[in-house]
Amino acid sequence: MSADNTVFIGKKPTMNYVLAVVTLFKNGNDKVNIKARGKAISRAVDVALITQRRFVTDATIEDIKIMTEEVPTGDEDLTKVSSIEIIMGRQE
Amino acid sequence: MSADNTVFIGKKPTMNYVLAVVTLFKNGNDKVNIKARGKAISRAVDVALITQRRFVTDATIEDIKIMTEEVPTGDEDLTKVSSIEIIMGRQE
Repeated sequence: MSADNTVFIGKKPTMNYVLAVVTLFKNGNDKVNIKARGKAISRAVDVALITQRRFVTDATIEDIKIMTEEVPTGDEDLTKVSSIEIIMGRQE
Repeated sequence: MSADNTVFIGKKPTMNYVLAVVTLFKNGNDKVNIKARGKAISRAVDVALITQRRFVTDATIEDIKIMTEEVPTGDEDLTKVSSIEIIMGRQE
C-alpha cells in the first residue's frame, strides 16, 4: 500500500486526521491506511471509528496490525516503540 | 471469553500488566484477552508486544478488535470512547 492513501497520526486534533481519511475516500480510494506510533495509537483508533460512524458509514475495518519499530534516539541508540496500522476499506 | 483470562489495562506501569498476561499464560491459559479504553489503548498494544517479544515468544496476536463504547459521565449523559480488544493465543 503506497503512502498516497496512508494517513500518519501525530499530535494534531483528532478531527484533522478524520478529515484526511474522509478526503481520501471521497477522492475514490477504496482502501485507506491509518498508521501511528506510541501514544498516538489511541488517536488512530479514534480516527478510524469516528470516520466509520459519522462520515463513511459503509467503510469497514479490514485489518489491524500491531508491531514494534526501532526509532533512533540520538547518539547511536535505538529505542523500541509500538505501532499500529489500521486498514479501512469500502466497496465501490 | 470470560473475564478470568482477561487483563484490563489502566494507568499502572506497563510491566504490571505484562506480568498479569504472562501469569495467565503460565497458569495454562491458551488464550489471553487484553482490553483497554481511551488513552490506555496505546499501553495495551505495548503490553501485547512486550509479552510476545520478551516473555511468551510462542504467543501470537490472534485478533484485534476496535469498537466504540458509551460511558456514563455523571448526570444522565453518555460519552463515546474507543476501546480495543487484543486476543493473544498460544499452541499447547
